[in-house]
Amino acid sequence: MALSLTVLGSSSATPTASRYPSSFLLRSNKQKDYFLIDCGEGTQILLRRVGIRMQQISRIFISHLHGDHFFGLIGFLFTQSLLGRKEELHIYAHKPLQKIIRMQLKMDKSKMTYPIFFHPINARKKKEMPLYENDKISVTTFPLLHSIPTNGFLFREKGHSRLVSKEFIAQYRPTVKQILGIKEGNDFRTQNGVLLSNKSITELSSDLKTFAYCSDTAYTETILPFIHGVNLLYHEATFMQDMLSVAEEKYHSTAMQAATIAKLAQVDKLLIGHYSARYKDISPLLQEAQDVFPNTLAAFEGATFQI
Amino acid sequence: MALSLTVLGSSSATPTASRYPSSFLLRSNKQKDYFLIDCGEGTQILLRRVGIRMQQISRIFISHLHGDHFFGLIGFLFTQSLLGRKEELHIYAHKPLQKIIRMQLKMDKSKMTYPIFFHPINARKKKEMPLYENDKISVTTFPLLHSIPTNGFLFREKGHSRLVSKEFIAQYRPTVKQILGIKEGNDFRTQNGVLLSNKSITELSSDLKTFAYCSDTAYTETILPFIHGVNLLYHEATFMQDMLSVAEEKYHSTAMQAATIAKLAQVDKLLIGHYSARYKDISPLLQEAQDVFPNTLAAFEGATFQI
Repeated sequence: MALSLTVLGSSSATPTASRYPSSFLLRSNKQKDYFLIDCGEGTQILLRRVGIRMQQISRIFISHLHGDHFFGLIGFLFTQSLLGRKEELHIYAHKPLQKIIRMQLKMDKSKMTYPIFFHPINARKKKEMPLYENDKISVTTFPLLHSIPTNGFLFREKGHSRLVSKEFIAQYRPTVKQILGIKEGNDFRTQNGVLLSNKSITELSSDLKTFAYCSDTAYTETILPFIHGVNLLYHEATFMQDMLSVAEEKYHSTAMQAATIAKLAQVDKLLIGHYSARYKDISPLLQEAQDVFPNTLAAFEGATFQI
Repeated sequence: MALSLTVLGSSSATPTASRYPSSFLLRSNKQKDYFLIDCGEGTQILLRRVGIRMQQISRIFISHLHGDHFFGLIGFLFTQSLLGRKEELHIYAHKPLQKIIRMQLKMDKSKMTYPIFFHPINARKKKEMPLYENDKISVTTFPLLHSIPTNGFLFREKGHSRLVSKEFIAQYRPTVKQILGIKEGNDFRTQNGVLLSNKSITELSSDLKTFAYCSDTAYTETILPFIHGVNLLYHEATFMQDMLSVAEEKYHSTAMQAATIAKLAQVDKLLIGHYSARYKDISPLLQEAQDVFPNTLAAFEGATFQI
């Protein structure tokens, strides 16, 4: 199993000539539908550029209602209709977005070719809350610390966490039906009538991946319990540490702070992004983060990271 | 004097990996403020890419309220505020846009750093109507034929349309004040008391440029009186002639139709754009138009055309 994250926008609020506002595509090889996380202006163009069939996107998660995180949504919605989309689209966002989108859809006389469902995020809850779940993945949300209500997202692969032992299969040649039963937790009775416990003939699967998304947020250790030990943490790094006071004032983080959170949360890998337009070259931000947390990567448009 | 037009978006409603929705920048070397014509998604990014200081844009003209012509506006407005813009911004558009923009501005708690003025376009008037005028340029609007109320724009350079004759100056050595008076239309009395008529000592200036913008529109000869003889006509060419029935159904034009309009209106140059995403290569559209009207150019992102 595998999750991958494609960066569509690595810029903070003011885009540059080469960096777009926040937008990310999460894909799992376990399911054919994709998730979009934030949807800054230009998202649909970037999706075309990386060769994604937009109809495959089934769910969109918007972290908060600053424009650089959702101004690409309305264009995405209309383009889907122009392309004749039939598939349901689910949007998870804070409530006022629904009003804005509905108003714009209503104003346009053309009828959408597909159904759109809004799922409001309750920003008042100061704990992890479920947003969506199927048998392959679960999505939850947790509060970040920003100038307006802002939520992070946690994506956890699900499924059969036990693999049937190869030695057992070689020795006892179970049927496919039996194997599926064992994956579901069944024990196995040999032809000699010996009962082999499920635990003794399976192995823990260690390839269920987790991804946490934190944008935008000031440095806050309150998020540590939610993101602890994830395989990949995306954490904004708008500024470098020499601009700490500006970062604090604007409820954003520095690269060093993002790395500190990654270290404290004991994550496998950190991905930084949401860079201020003032940084033409982002390698100093990456270096600053790596000095604290070596396993740090830097987001850039079009890049795909395996989780 | 000179006008120039920079293409920021040459795509029709569905953008491609390389073509953005409609957006154009009009500049005059007579004034330091610029005009934006339509503002599709991604406009602010394209403006950065062509190196334009966005604060120099003083007026935005939106032809109609299909999303591919204005979804970049809200991002542009917020970015201007993030950059600390102080200069007034004037928006000319059909009335419902004001409601959409106001609602989104209101929802965001941050206060805009600059004043925005809305100027509604009255789409019911079936004639040329003034929108804006200063001593260097005038802007008028006229109706196009589309599925929703849609307006074209006509930009006319103004100024002293008569140049004082060099021979007259050499012979009679008028003062600067006298020259300015003659430019304003005064006659000139020689030291011998002879009255030289204004006409006899001035020449018609032929460098006042005109630009007409027609997007989106079905083929309609009703626009000919408005665009007659302009130096540059931008006319949409969404399809080729083999898709005439689709073009008609969607109230769009073919390249051949755009060229026919240019020919009938006796314009100097035609610029086509608003290409359907189905055309990876737009040279066949250009060829189709040039077969009817040889002086045709094709819009592409980042290109600047001298008018």
